[in-house]
Amino acid sequence: MKVLVTGATGFIGRHLVPVLLERGHEVAVVGRDVERARGFAWFDSVRFVSCDIHRMDDRALELFGAQDIVVHLAWPGLPNYKAAFHVEENLPGDCRFLTSLIKKVTGRLLVAGTCAEYGLQSGCLTEEMPTYPANAYAQAKDSLRTVLQDFQGQYPFTLQWARLFYMYGPGQNPNSLLAQLDRAIDSGEPEFNMSGGEQLRDYLPVQEVARRLVALADHPACAGVVNVCSGEPVSVRNLVERHLAQRGATLSLNLGHYPYADDEPMAFWGGTEKYRRFCGHV
Amino acid sequence: MKVLVTGATGFIGRHLVPVLLERGHEVAVVGRDVERARGFAWFDSVRFVSCDIHRMDDRALELFGAQDIVVHLAWPGLPNYKAAFHVEENLPGDCRFLTSLIKKVTGRLLVAGTCAEYGLQSGCLTEEMPTYPANAYAQAKDSLRTVLQDFQGQYPFTLQWARLFYMYGPGQNPNSLLAQLDRAIDSGEPEFNMSGGEQLRDYLPVQEVARRLVALADHPACAGVVNVCSGEPVSVRNLVERHLAQRGATLSLNLGHYPYADDEPMAFWGGTEKYRRFCGHV
Repeated sequence: MKVLVTGATGFIGRHLVPVLLERGHEVAVVGRDVERARGFAWFDSVRFVSCDIHRMDDRALELFGAQDIVVHLAWPGLPNYKAAFHVEENLPGDCRFLTSLIKKVTGRLLVAGTCAEYGLQSGCLTEEMPTYPANAYAQAKDSLRTVLQDFQGQYPFTLQWARLFYMYGPGQNPNSLLAQLDRAIDSGEPEFNMSGGEQLRDYLPVQEVARRLVALADHPACAGVVNVCSGEPVSVRNLVERHLAQRGATLSLNLGHYPYADDEPMAFWGGTEKYRRFCGHV
Repeated sequence: MKVLVTGATGFIGRHLVPVLLERGHEVAVVGRDVERARGFAWFDSVRFVSCDIHRMDDRALELFGAQDIVVHLAWPGLPNYKAAFHVEENLPGDCRFLTSLIKKVTGRLLVAGTCAEYGLQSGCLTEEMPTYPANAYAQAKDSLRTVLQDFQGQYPFTLQWARLFYMYGPGQNPNSLLAQLDRAIDSGEPEFNMSGGEQLRDYLPVQEVARRLVALADHPACAGVVNVCSGEPVSVRNLVERHLAQRGATLSLNLGHYPYADDEPMAFWGGTEKYRRFCGHV
C-alpha cells in the first residue's frame, strides 16, 4: 500500500515508519523539518514531502500524490493539554488538512485520537461509550472526530480513529514519569519523588502502539473508533517498580510526595475487544 | 432517644451499641442468642429482647415497645454473597419484619445497605446513581430498599439506608484479608499470598462505621440512601502494607499469587458529600 504519514518524527511516528517499511508498504512522510527527519535511519527509505500541513496550498496536495491511506499522527504542542491552541489552531488546521486529503488524495484516514476523549469516566472504557472531553486537547480531538464522521456523509471514506492510551519508550517526553525516573537513576539519586502511585492506568510500550496502528492500517474493516491499549489496569507504582527492576536500580520511591491530579480519574483503562476482533490477539 | 438494634452482636453492632450508650440513648437489643449477647460488656446496659426476627408473631412486636428508631443491622449468613438464601429467606423475612415495625413500633428505620448494590460500576459511586446488583446478596438488599421505599407511600416513615463499603477491625470475619494477615504474622509465616493488590477500594475501621451510623441516627434529615465510606480510594496492597507497618511486621507479600475477582470492579469507592452535608466533617 501507499501510505502517507504525518508526525513521522514524533514519539509514535518514529517507531511506526520502520514497521510500515518492514511490512512492505511504500511510505511517504510529510513534515516541516527535513533536517529533523534526516536524523532517522528510515529517512532514505521514504519519500519526504516538505510541508506545513496547517498552512498548505493546493500545490502541496498534488505533491502528496494518490495514497491508499493517510496515517495522521501530527499534533503540535503536546503535552500542555489545557492550552487554547489545541482548539484555536490545531483543530481548524486539521479539519482543513484532512478534508482536503479526502477530496484529492486518499479514501482512507487513520487518525490518532486519545483516551482523554472519554473524560472523567472510570473503569474499563469501551468505544461505544459517550465522550466527555474535559480539557482543550481532548475537546479538539473529540471535535475533529465529529467533523470527520459528519464529513463521511458528504464524501464517503473510511475513517479509523485510534484512541491512544498511555505509552512509554524511546522518544518519550522528557517530562514524562519514566523519563524523569531514568534521569534520577542515571544521576544516582537516592530517592524519587512521586504521587501515591495507586492510580490505575493503561500503558503500552510505544513500539507496540506503532505495531497496532500498522495492524489497523492493514485491517480497514476495523473502522470507526478503536482503542489502542493493553486492556490491563496497572498502578503507576507498579509501572515504576517494574521499570526499576528492569534497570536493576535500587533507588527508593517517595510515594505520596505529589498529590494526585484532580483532572484525571483515579482508575481507567481501555477495552481491547474491538481491536482483537479485527486484528487478532493482542 | 429509644433505639432498638438488630444484629447487635454482629461485626458492626458490637461497636455500635457502646456508641449509642455513650450518646445517652436508651438501647434495646433484639437477638436470638442471649448467651452470645451476655458476652459483651454492654449487655447489662441494654434491654435484651429474645426473638428471631424472621419468625416473629405479634406478641414479639409488643415486647419491643414504642421506639424512636430501629437500627437494623442483622443479616444472617454473610459473607457467602452468591447463595440463594439472601433472596429466598432474608429478603422476605426482612420485608415482613420491617413493615411490621413501621405499623406498630417506630416511625424511623436506619437499615444497613451495601456498596454491592452499585454492582460492577467503577470510580466514585454516589447515592443518586442507578443500582446494578450483581449477586444474590446485593439483589436482596436492593429489593429490600425498593420495597421499603414503596412502602413509604402507604405508611409515611423516615428511611435511612446506609450503604456500607469495606470495613475492618475487631470482630471481622476470620476469612477476611486482614484477619488472614494477622494469623500469618502471629504464626511467623515468612510470606503472605495475596492478589496483585492493585484493586482500589474504600475502607473504614468498623468503629468509625459504628460512629457514623449513630451520627445518622442523630440526623434524621439525612434521609434516603447515604454512603458510609471514607471517600478515599486505597489499594489493597497499601491497606496491607499499612497494617504490616502498624504491627511492626516484616513478612513479605507474595503479590499476584491469587487472581483478581472477576465479579468485582477493579476500582471503586464512595462519595461522602451527602453524609458530610448532614453530619459534618468526616
